[in-house]
Amino acid sequence: MSMRASVLPALLISLAALALAQSKPRARDLGVPFDGNPGPLNAITDVKGVEVGHTTLISGEGPLKAGIGPVRTGVTAILPRGNHSDDSVFAGWFTLNGNGEMTGTTWIEESGFLDGPVMITNTHSVGVVRDAVIAWSVRHSPPDANGEWWSLPVVAETWDGYLNDVNGFHVKPEHVFHALETARSGSVEEGNVGGGTGMICYEFKGGIGTASRVLDAKYGSYTVGVLAQCNYGRRSQLHIAGVPVGREIPGHVYDDDVGSIIAVVATDAPLLPTQLKRLARRVSLGLGRDGGYSGNGSGDIFLAFSTANPGAVDPKGPHQITMLANEQLDPIFLATIEATEEAVVNALVAAETMTGIDNHTVTALPHDRLREVLQKYNRLAK
Amino acid sequence: MSMRASVLPALLISLAALALAQSKPRARDLGVPFDGNPGPLNAITDVKGVEVGHTTLISGEGPLKAGIGPVRTGVTAILPRGNHSDDSVFAGWFTLNGNGEMTGTTWIEESGFLDGPVMITNTHSVGVVRDAVIAWSVRHSPPDANGEWWSLPVVAETWDGYLNDVNGFHVKPEHVFHALETARSGSVEEGNVGGGTGMICYEFKGGIGTASRVLDAKYGSYTVGVLAQCNYGRRSQLHIAGVPVGREIPGHVYDDDVGSIIAVVATDAPLLPTQLKRLARRVSLGLGRDGGYSGNGSGDIFLAFSTANPGAVDPKGPHQITMLANEQLDPIFLATIEATEEAVVNALVAAETMTGIDNHTVTALPHDRLREVLQKYNRLAK
Amino acid sequence: MSMRASVLPALLISLAALALAQSKPRARDLGVPFDGNPGPLNAITDVKGVEVGHTTLISGEGPLKAGIGPVRTGVTAILPRGNHSDDSVFAGWFTLNGNGEMTGTTWIEESGFLDGPVMITNTHSVGVVRDAVIAWSVRHSPPDANGEWWSLPVVAETWDGYLNDVNGFHVKPEHVFHALETARSGSVEEGNVGGGTGMICYEFKGGIGTASRVLDAKYGSYTVGVLAQCNYGRRSQLHIAGVPVGREIPGHVYDDDVGSIIAVVATDAPLLPTQLKRLARRVSLGLGRDGGYSGNGSGDIFLAFSTANPGAVDPKGPHQITMLANEQLDPIFLATIEATEEAVVNALVAAETMTGIDNHTVTALPHDRLREVLQKYNRLAK
Amino acid sequence: MSMRASVLPALLISLAALALAQSKPRARDLGVPFDGNPGPLNAITDVKGVEVGHTTLISGEGPLKAGIGPVRTGVTAILPRGNHSDDSVFAGWFTLNGNGEMTGTTWIEESGFLDGPVMITNTHSVGVVRDAVIAWSVRHSPPDANGEWWSLPVVAETWDGYLNDVNGFHVKPEHVFHALETARSGSVEEGNVGGGTGMICYEFKGGIGTASRVLDAKYGSYTVGVLAQCNYGRRSQLHIAGVPVGREIPGHVYDDDVGSIIAVVATDAPLLPTQLKRLARRVSLGLGRDGGYSGNGSGDIFLAFSTANPGAVDPKGPHQITMLANEQLDPIFLATIEATEEAVVNALVAAETMTGIDNHTVTALPHDRLREVLQKYNRLAK
Repeated sequence: MSMRASVLPALLISLAALALAQSKPRARDLGVPFDGNPGPLNAITDVKGVEVGHTTLISGEGPLKAGIGPVRTGVTAILPRGNHSDDSVFAGWFTLNGNGEMTGTTWIEESGFLDGPVMITNTHSVGVVRDAVIAWSVRHSPPDANGEWWSLPVVAETWDGYLNDVNGFHVKPEHVFHALETARSGSVEEGNVGGGTGMICYEFKGGIGTASRVLDAKYGSYTVGVLAQCNYGRRSQLHIAGVPVGREIPGHVYDDDVGSIIAVVATDAPLLPTQLKRLARRVSLGLGRDGGYSGNGSGDIFLAFSTANPGAVDPKGPHQITMLANEQLDPIFLATIEATEEAVVNALVAAETMTGIDNHTVTALPHDRLREVLQKYNRLAK
Repeated sequence: MSMRASVLPALLISLAALALAQSKPRARDLGVPFDGNPGPLNAITDVKGVEVGHTTLISGEGPLKAGIGPVRTGVTAILPRGNHSDDSVFAGWFTLNGNGEMTGTTWIEESGFLDGPVMITNTHSVGVVRDAVIAWSVRHSPPDANGEWWSLPVVAETWDGYLNDVNGFHVKPEHVFHALETARSGSVEEGNVGGGTGMICYEFKGGIGTASRVLDAKYGSYTVGVLAQCNYGRRSQLHIAGVPVGREIPGHVYDDDVGSIIAVVATDAPLLPTQLKRLARRVSLGLGRDGGYSGNGSGDIFLAFSTANPGAVDPKGPHQITMLANEQLDPIFLATIEATEEAVVNALVAAETMTGIDNHTVTALPHDRLREVLQKYNRLAK
Repeated sequence: MSMRASVLPALLISLAALALAQSKPRARDLGVPFDGNPGPLNAITDVKGVEVGHTTLISGEGPLKAGIGPVRTGVTAILPRGNHSDDSVFAGWFTLNGNGEMTGTTWIEESGFLDGPVMITNTHSVGVVRDAVIAWSVRHSPPDANGEWWSLPVVAETWDGYLNDVNGFHVKPEHVFHALETARSGSVEEGNVGGGTGMICYEFKGGIGTASRVLDAKYGSYTVGVLAQCNYGRRSQLHIAGVPVGREIPGHVYDDDVGSIIAVVATDAPLLPTQLKRLARRVSLGLGRDGGYSGNGSGDIFLAFSTANPGAVDPKGPHQITMLANEQLDPIFLATIEATEEAVVNALVAAETMTGIDNHTVTALPHDRLREVLQKYNRLAK
Repeated sequence: MSMRASVLPALLISLAALALAQSKPRARDLGVPFDGNPGPLNAITDVKGVEVGHTTLISGEGPLKAGIGPVRTGVTAILPRGNHSDDSVFAGWFTLNGNGEMTGTTWIEESGFLDGPVMITNTHSVGVVRDAVIAWSVRHSPPDANGEWWSLPVVAETWDGYLNDVNGFHVKPEHVFHALETARSGSVEEGNVGGGTGMICYEFKGGIGTASRVLDAKYGSYTVGVLAQCNYGRRSQLHIAGVPVGREIPGHVYDDDVGSIIAVVATDAPLLPTQLKRLARRVSLGLGRDGGYSGNGSGDIFLAFSTANPGAVDPKGPHQITMLANEQLDPIFLATIEATEEAVVNALVAAETMTGIDNHTVTALPHDRLREVLQKYNRLAK
């Protein structure tokens, strides 16, 4: 697949999605009740500075021809401080079940910093995305104090081989550059986009979902945003707002559990790395609400970062930084859980039925049935 | 408080509780719907060999006089292979939020073994319980191959200072011996007993709860049991079977979050330490279902052990041991989550309204209101 | 052993040791070459604010009578900000081999703070020491904002059962209070004192050792101090300044490895919890230099704290704190390694031959032989 | 650089190195005294089944032209069960300082298994190597039970940008295939080969080093082998056999610390994942002996695996497996430390002076001077 064949359609898809973005309902629009107060966009980009870009690769249909297609994949970029900054952010991470990859985490754990973007793609494209982030950094950022570029990029994945020619290695460096360069603030496309293009969630079509919470002024008015690439879960386990939706709308895709979820938590609250690790761990509780059980085959890896404390990574310290007291974290913990819970449902609501390799078809969560089921259990919000 | 004043009443309370055990409803009896198949006792003791003992200390009323009372506390003992074995079990542990203590975990992490019982008590009595376990071991077990007793006991805690004179240090070595020596298989007392005596859960009276699951024959017919000392949670967050019970039955006890939950998972499935750690981590997902958000003040520490592979700790190896494949764990993960979810609700259902120090009163979850709320949301099982 | 019988002799021993402190040679005095620049005391108390107290319990001789003696044990207290502060410090910990206990570490890991003192005692007295620290705190410190005392004390141990009646539980609350109340800055007693009284190191008599390093002004003039309770190692492995001292001065005490080392690293450098964990991990490299191999039976647990950033634990944030850049840590890492290496040798040099239960005798490292061996390998400094 | 230009020279270099292998002295040949008994090859390949392959890329000289060269890099492959097996091995890992990358470790930690080879390359080529391992697996191995290839390859790195055009991304998939396909048992090339080609160690030329130990029959005659890619350390810190070689042979390469060491420990002892993690941690103690201080810029990541228990990863359990008792591990711990210590010195002894980009030259450890210094400190073995 040439650059033209891949990026241009992706751009067109992006533009089309943007046009549709206003009209596509989200989970709240369908009457799903959630707790807490979302930000204006109800997205990770409510955290000031955070930018998101997607490259979506969709081409071909019919039988799988390895290396040719059909292609249903992509890559998503999250830039903590946006495209024009190479400053780092404090970060922490957690694995609920480690059948997955997130490169760069050893250095996050050691240093307390996330340097550069967070990329999410399919399992077999982690490497190309990783090296492309370095190439992009060499092109766009100045070297460090020693005249060198040193980089341990963060790239995560979930597996899309049920719909996508995953062994065809269709993600190329130019797709990575495109996701990075088109990253922007504002509303975030959800569903079959970017790294989430070919994903499956609770045996419905899954993909990218996002949500946010803004704390009350008495708690500091901080924002917490979550973006998740959702590719996990058994239909029978799916709960939405506590309602057993999965049993009311039964269905089955495959027997083997190859699912995973990557979740990225962003906040402007001034938190230390140890505190951000605590946020990352709370993603688990949001998944528990939705019915996740983190099967053996699941790569459930979560990363949290704070956009506060710019400049803290500068090699010339000491630095004056700001931190919240541990006693102030409870509203942020709760916001993380609630935003996670909603981001997953947003992914399910946004994703559309997709047919991929070998005519495998995964159907979207039917909006009208969802409303009926919520009504049955007296949980329809409007 | 003398031995007579403390243990004898505890014995009487134990006998009384035993008599009542058949008549006290559990969560299922009230029509709370749960997934999965419980064992005959729906308790951790469904795992063959596991024994549980409680010492319950209740005395005094009225204003707090430090060192005198009122006393509302105790200690619970879980013996993985029962009172007549000093063999170890494979084990793994996990902390969702570490504002708590479980001694002995450094050695569990290193060795993969749990040696001796698991004890649960109040925060300020961890030390006395720990040393008493050693004293008991010196009395009752033979020394090791070097003629010595070497022990790093496992003692966990949650804080009962709202109802109990926690700074009075009322738990004594003889209470520890009593819990150990009266441990038995069979049904397990729940609610205001043992270490759970003075505990508070979702701002209702909490305490000890337990539940179990038996896997289908095709998954090996293994049993998973959970016992939890429940002392966590905000009323507004409580969900039972997905229903927002906490908002329907509002109430408030105190503003500061001093809650915690200790959960112990037992199984007869032949699992390695790494696999048991994975079980311990799944407790988080069960708490997520109930509405836990693991506040900063919470000590949410979970331990899982397997009664399979007797003799594996013998210093003279190599040993032949049995392990399940990782691919066989999903039903066990799900069983752990379901049993955790139910154990917490069982604690809430079993606990009775209690008045403690300074006439602080914490009310029990009203059974009839619970049924009404479940009915309102079309989730009453019977 | 009554209060009188135990604390008074301990006091006398302390006073005697103080008088001798000036005349006892330390490793440097014997010509052992070390790298780096020690502080004025070459002790953990070179870190301003740090105070150390010991209670040493030595009584009886001859055959072991459990509960009677002979007694060769004690407890050591390290107060990060001294006896008149209840402020916390940032902290991190690490386990090289976890066959040991350090209570309170789960909360250190979660919160990033060490609240209260660090206590070191024998294996079977961890519990009594732990609860006594709470009792002491209730007596001496104001309650928290909720009117409560909440405490998860940090108590570590190594095993002294070869010389001490460890199953006699001779450490009592009053011994804990004494160590806390007599803690002071200034020079630190080493060898057969406090928790180190009955310890064995490389099959020589071991115990408490300490050392410090002061960084060059260009690195910020920070101080790093280490205090270790040394109870580990095989004679054949012992190296001092790279010289195979253990093979040159052979000897043997027992076959089973029951050794351990607890090391506490203090610094005034402004470090975050993640950075302090890195310091704790460097203790391993210091032990590597001495010849430690961290056997299965060893509880090698290390804790590092920083006295910078007072008030950071206050529940009312946000707080302005200071942190060094990660790029500034190398001299601090090296200081930690060097001070660890020297603290162990200081313990060996200070400890004196001791006879304990059943007339077990452990001999001290002979100073003259040490000098001869260093000379043989051209490493004698003076 | 085309396939022809890169792999063919690499092959020639490999053949030449092979011819020289017999004549090149190793550390023992120079009279460096080490403890313990090495295996016949004194290499990781003494562990039966383990195979090692290198692709060495050396081309160009003079000024750096990014993307052109000079090239001084490569990739090394370690196949735990050799090239004709796709069976997994039990594994555990540890990070002493995490300024580095080893992909796939999240799944090793979770599952206890290492699936596939361990690859070591330069920092900026981790991605291409990772995806190439998947591509190779798709070509050479059958799919899993679901008809899919699922792979989370393990690829580690150290940074060679002082000698190599690291931003030129010269490692290509065919170089990965070559290393995998030429992997073999037998003696292992050391020094400027494979991933170690452009590495620097203690400011001498570094690279690949290996060593092994065979346990006494009374300890089970197990073999422990270590292979390290050595790119770390300050000259002033270097100790060999306890002798301060670095101060006796002073020298300096650069001021910034960009070093790292990747160490892989192999054994045929039947160890569980928890036990292998303990082995990985012992590598630290070997580095401590050599003078490593694990600077902030160092990626010191260690992996240990056991070739025992074939078939344990089969998804159809339960499995009967063999484990050593923890009490049997001490000789294996010591072997790991000793083999690590020696592998590093072997890398230093084998590496040859190299000139790379911009005519940067790094000199080899001079063998004659090393002998003189050992003699000076009475440590020359022969």
